Amino acid sequence: MSLVVIGSVAYDGVQTPFGTVDRMLGGSCTYIALSASYFTSVGIVGVVGDDFAQEDVDLLTSRKIGVEGLERVQGKTFFWKGVYSDDMNDRTTLATDLNVFADFDPKLPEPYKDAPYLFLGNIQPTLQKGVRDQMKATQLVGGDTMNLWIDIARPALLETLKGWDFLLINDSEARMLSGEANLKRAAARIMEMGPKIVVIKRGEYGAILFTPEYHFIAPGYLLQQVFDPTGAGDCFAGGFMGYLASKGIEAARAGDDRLELFRAVIYGSVMGSFCCEQFGVDRFRTLNRLEIDGRFQEFKDFTGF
Amino acid sequence: MSLVVIGSVAYDGVQTPFGTVDRMLGGSCTYIALSASYFTSVGIVGVVGDDFAQEDVDLLTSRKIGVEGLERVQGKTFFWKGVYSDDMNDRTTLATDLNVFADFDPKLPEPYKDAPYLFLGNIQPTLQKGVRDQMKATQLVGGDTMNLWIDIARPALLETLKGWDFLLINDSEARMLSGEANLKRAAARIMEMGPKIVVIKRGEYGAILFTPEYHFIAPGYLLQQVFDPTGAGDCFAGGFMGYLASKGIEAARAGDDRLELFRAVIYGSVMGSFCCEQFGVDRFRTLNRLEIDGRFQEFKDFTGF
Repeated sequence: MSLVVIGSVAYDGVQTPFGTVDRMLGGSCTYIALSASYFTSVGIVGVVGDDFAQEDVDLLTSRKIGVEGLERVQGKTFFWKGVYSDDMNDRTTLATDLNVFADFDPKLPEPYKDAPYLFLGNIQPTLQKGVRDQMKATQLVGGDTMNLWIDIARPALLETLKGWDFLLINDSEARMLSGEANLKRAAARIMEMGPKIVVIKRGEYGAILFTPEYHFIAPGYLLQQVFDPTGAGDCFAGGFMGYLASKGIEAARAGDDRLELFRAVIYGSVMGSFCCEQFGVDRFRTLNRLEIDGRFQEFKDFTGF
Repeated sequence: MSLVVIGSVAYDGVQTPFGTVDRMLGGSCTYIALSASYFTSVGIVGVVGDDFAQEDVDLLTSRKIGVEGLERVQGKTFFWKGVYSDDMNDRTTLATDLNVFADFDPKLPEPYKDAPYLFLGNIQPTLQKGVRDQMKATQLVGGDTMNLWIDIARPALLETLKGWDFLLINDSEARMLSGEANLKRAAARIMEMGPKIVVIKRGEYGAILFTPEYHFIAPGYLLQQVFDPTGAGDCFAGGFMGYLASKGIEAARAGDDRLELFRAVIYGSVMGSFCCEQFGVDRFRTLNRLEIDGRFQEFKDFTGF
């Protein structure tokens, strides 16, 4: 196993201008793992209830994702429900039922602890740190967070961030965490908190990777139609981390080969764009590596001069 | 003379989080011409009142801009006053005194009529068309418009657009003109109206160039500090058109050499970014071509993979 991913495994109810799905597989861990599975071998750590469907486990294992760390306990799986605005740039949460996720205490299977890559999806920062501490040989660790933890668990988050190689975060959260409105200065402040690399996600406008020495800007892919943006940021994370894992530790360290870091951002953008093309994880039921590399080449064509 | 530019020549009062200037040189024609003057020979067509200062004429001529078409009439120069929001993404107009601009009837000096390049800055669409019709040998014509004309002069605008090679427009105006929320489909609709090329400006997020066959996305330059965004879109237009004019007609036609078109978008972005670094046109008092080409190289570095 190359990459361990932790986060939520959930059911989502989603309403977009293109339709409504009452209940479908979701969760940050799910999206990150599915996306990363196109690049490297992945094992997940999460918790689900006894209502979790075998066909959803099957989707994960069909992508060769290790589910040894997917704990199943009595009760219901985490459920989230939301509705998107007409332009898809905003969403309103209608329900957040933590269910079994409320008592999530991540336990890593022994073999996972030797994995070289770790991605900490968005969960409570102290839990993220606990997982990091269980790993024995991690050589590169990155993660995500959200406005809730910046707001209510800031000290724990700052403690957790100290041990990360990179942080993926969206623009409004970067501003909130750093107290800086300007993204360049926000990234500089966040790098002082620990992460050597900060990747700021800007939704439809793409993403920026910052290191102390340089930065790289990737535009968002222009889709004719965004069906459902749920999970796009997590798929970005999966593509970014998965690509780095596939290239080995050397490529993943800032300064060693910046072009591989830049390509990881592009693969992240590619995976995020595919995610939006269908509801939930549906696009990953048919997506293949040829399509992924084709879209990577498209990025080259519409950004190169 | 290579490029004729038409538009407003004005005085602006501007308030940003970094300060207030009660009265300074502005206007679309002024910004476009200053920006384009780094790439090609420019002549302007505009009108000012008898209050227009000689030092402002001197700034234009110091950049070798032809002012033979700058008509001076009795009365006051067009005055615009506005205040920017804290994040600079919105602005509120406090005053629009058209003054002598209200009766602007553009008259082209004879030698201007033989220029191969024409850029129609944002003025009433019928006036834009009148200028286009006065030109004898124009080989490439582009222009700008605004929400006001899309709203109150739509038929005249549609008539005017038929004769353009390219339209530069911002994202919200592109949506308004086309009736399409999705930018890719908005651009396709606008190209059906006449322009062979559509460049959609996205403020801090950069710009996208569309042709019927392909598109190119340029991110915005990351400034540590935006002092005053007034004129940035016009400076984009000046850099874009100026660069194309410097490369000759062949390069400027879509399909002939797409990389030159893409580089024109980058030069547009470069000029827009410099514009924001100081109040009004101040950056152009010291800017030189070496700095411009240096920033063009920076774009290569932070977008190439």
